[in-house]
Amino acid sequence: MNKNNNNKYTINKLDKLKKTLDIVNEDLKHSEEEQKELSKFTEQLINKLHAIFKENNLIPPIIDIVQVGSTARNTNLNNDYDIDIFVRFEKHTNKELLEEITIKYGEKVINKLGGKCWVEYAEHPYLSAKVDKYEIDIVPCYKLNWGDKIISAVDRTPLHNEYVINKIQNNHKLVMDIKILKKFLKGIGVYGSDLKTKGFSGYLCELLIIYYGGFLNLLNATQNWKIGEKIILEDLFKLHNLNNDYQFMDFPKQPLIVYDPTDINRNVAAALSNENFCKFIYYSYLFLNSPNIKYFNNNFSVKEKEKLNNREKGKIITLILEREKDTVEDIIYPQMERLQNSINKLIKEHDFEYLEYSNYADENYCYLSWEFLVYALPNVKIKIGPYIYQNKNRINNFINKYDKCFVKDCTICAYINRQYTTIDDLFKDLSNGKLSNKIVHTKQVKIKNCKIITNNNNQ
Amino acid sequence: MNKNNNNKYTINKLDKLKKTLDIVNEDLKHSEEEQKELSKFTEQLINKLHAIFKENNLIPPIIDIVQVGSTARNTNLNNDYDIDIFVRFEKHTNKELLEEITIKYGEKVINKLGGKCWVEYAEHPYLSAKVDKYEIDIVPCYKLNWGDKIISAVDRTPLHNEYVINKIQNNHKLVMDIKILKKFLKGIGVYGSDLKTKGFSGYLCELLIIYYGGFLNLLNATQNWKIGEKIILEDLFKLHNLNNDYQFMDFPKQPLIVYDPTDINRNVAAALSNENFCKFIYYSYLFLNSPNIKYFNNNFSVKEKEKLNNREKGKIITLILEREKDTVEDIIYPQMERLQNSINKLIKEHDFEYLEYSNYADENYCYLSWEFLVYALPNVKIKIGPYIYQNKNRINNFINKYDKCFVKDCTICAYINRQYTTIDDLFKDLSNGKLSNKIVHTKQVKIKNCKIITNNNNQ
Repeated sequence: MNKNNNNKYTINKLDKLKKTLDIVNEDLKHSEEEQKELSKFTEQLINKLHAIFKENNLIPPIIDIVQVGSTARNTNLNNDYDIDIFVRFEKHTNKELLEEITIKYGEKVINKLGGKCWVEYAEHPYLSAKVDKYEIDIVPCYKLNWGDKIISAVDRTPLHNEYVINKIQNNHKLVMDIKILKKFLKGIGVYGSDLKTKGFSGYLCELLIIYYGGFLNLLNATQNWKIGEKIILEDLFKLHNLNNDYQFMDFPKQPLIVYDPTDINRNVAAALSNENFCKFIYYSYLFLNSPNIKYFNNNFSVKEKEKLNNREKGKIITLILEREKDTVEDIIYPQMERLQNSINKLIKEHDFEYLEYSNYADENYCYLSWEFLVYALPNVKIKIGPYIYQNKNRINNFINKYDKCFVKDCTICAYINRQYTTIDDLFKDLSNGKLSNKIVHTKQVKIKNCKIITNNNNQ
Repeated sequence: MNKNNNNKYTINKLDKLKKTLDIVNEDLKHSEEEQKELSKFTEQLINKLHAIFKENNLIPPIIDIVQVGSTARNTNLNNDYDIDIFVRFEKHTNKELLEEITIKYGEKVINKLGGKCWVEYAEHPYLSAKVDKYEIDIVPCYKLNWGDKIISAVDRTPLHNEYVINKIQNNHKLVMDIKILKKFLKGIGVYGSDLKTKGFSGYLCELLIIYYGGFLNLLNATQNWKIGEKIILEDLFKLHNLNNDYQFMDFPKQPLIVYDPTDINRNVAAALSNENFCKFIYYSYLFLNSPNIKYFNNNFSVKEKEKLNNREKGKIITLILEREKDTVEDIIYPQMERLQNSINKLIKEHDFEYLEYSNYADENYCYLSWEFLVYALPNVKIKIGPYIYQNKNRINNFINKYDKCFVKDCTICAYINRQYTTIDDLFKDLSNGKLSNKIVHTKQVKIKNCKIITNNNNQ
């Protein structure tokens, strides 16, 4: 009886799982028209670029022009109109020339198409453009063969494209499962490898689905993942002529290691934090146990946070700091974190205690927040000194320094006055610079003269 | 120049040391008259006991009557009129008979001397009496020879007496130094081996002075003492026929080990706490560095405490508990400690924090006190659950049990409500018995319906 019930339950669950994924699937199908339109536009763009380069005798040093990224592989989510075009040059081409050519003629083509464009800077400059709804990047790089050492950081990207397309073309299920995974990760708030999100990149999603053969396989596999999980794609050995006992590089502090097929010394999951690694395992568990479409909603993680925050709170203090404008989030967020960690240390040193802390940035300001459990303390404090039966000089220094000394357990102690009896006083001194030698200084995020807001919770 | 100054300083210090000890010495000399009076009275008492025992044909089984304790050795402090008389029986004497004889005839003698007497109970009953200013104990025991196994716990006492008298008779300096040491230990609050004081017994003082040859030698030696210090009196080997490589018993948790000359498997310093061991080292250091008569004042440690307590305070809560009357302090104090330690655990479990705690007892009540740093907290609390990538059953139990779950670092956590947001609420439930399954229950100290007093400090 029991066994039958269990089976019935399992069949019901599988059924529900299938139905849920069918809904997501349906929802993810690009309208065919949109898809055709994008392909047509991209073809036109590449043709025009090719023509202008040829006219100006630039082929060579230009070898070819390729579309890369998720739209090139059909693994983009709905309403994603990013078109990434890579202009590939011969290896010996002068770096300045390569940048100059791409920007100069790219600009001309975009203008002809009636769009706007501007120069962006990563490791080296490239052209960004907007034509109608399409967001276009035209990026120069060197053409590499498999196994070649990269010259600039973007040189790998066309190889990523080659690898993935080779694996998923003519396999509709894999393509759809990549999109389902991206949608799931977006729902639970861990999609994106930027330093703010610290989650999963699109390329990482593609490799995971290729490795595990599908979305459900992957979710089931995560239930046995441990911190430091290593994933080695099968054809890495062939691609790089490796022996079966090849010792892959170690990445000791990273929760997930996925060796890049285009560069076996690179971890594709390098940006993933422990917490987001665990979040993926946790929500996979919840979804597998009780399939629900909600996990695929764009605002699922926001709603979860709201649900969690609907609770009694401790005293909340937020520092509002001026930030350097026009600095990318990948620089601002690590700076906020370093600054906040140094303030955390200061808070603990002064015996206050927080429940949790968080940070975010908008265009003009950074916001560092704390929720406090302990934010007011009596003036008295016990300073613990050296062991009684240790070095007499240390004992002597201690009793000369402090007035009210006494023996407690095996140490000499003293009653002293506390520097801050409220967390507000400590934050006041943080803001007016009196504690500036106690905290980390960051270039683009400045603590001096910051604003302090508090919920003024009284216990 | 410098060297001369140092010498001068040292000579001055030695001079001050000598002058200080001279004052203490003078102060400690018993008036000769008092001493003679006590000796005369004791002789009379012993003679009367001897006569009545002889009259009744009790010699044998009684072998002899001896005076023991500090008044027998002349090492008692002023105003100490304790007279300890031991009636020694043959080893084969029946235990009930030995007790009966001592109490019956002891009572008759005390009555003849015009005093009052009553029966006290230790391991076995004995007679306690008061005649004029003299406080008398008449204790029956078995007469042992050196090396014999004891039959009752007090059988060692006459041997202690023999050993000490043999070492200090005709050595006025040693006698005076024993008294100086007792006075010093009394001043700093660590004289007495009862379970309330946890300090140094009179016998321990005598052995320390005998071993180190004097008060200043001992104080200097403490400056090199470490926890677990072992002291083996030289003639132990001869007295017990031991080889030089004899392995003495280990007392791993005791700070000072002084092997009893009358029983090498007993630590004379067994009652001494780590803290009092360290206090002795600390005040020895202070006294040697800046000799001062104040350390020998009876109320020095009380004054020190007052000086230390003249400071800002956290919230103070005192529990006043009913105690069983007529129970000796050596039973009440350990019970208070066990009860307070179990409450300390409870306080920490609920995230409150104390600066320090203490206890004492008077005839009717026990008082357990705490000084709090953190005594009010917001309602919210984070419950930390199992690691995400561990046993799925534990995760499942956790998320079924708690409503607001989330991933933090690598664990599953939940926001829960705090059981007690103020320390007052916790103490209310302690007093009304709601937490009775969380604390230790003691027989003579009852927490039920205790009174709570607080200084109602508001931060």
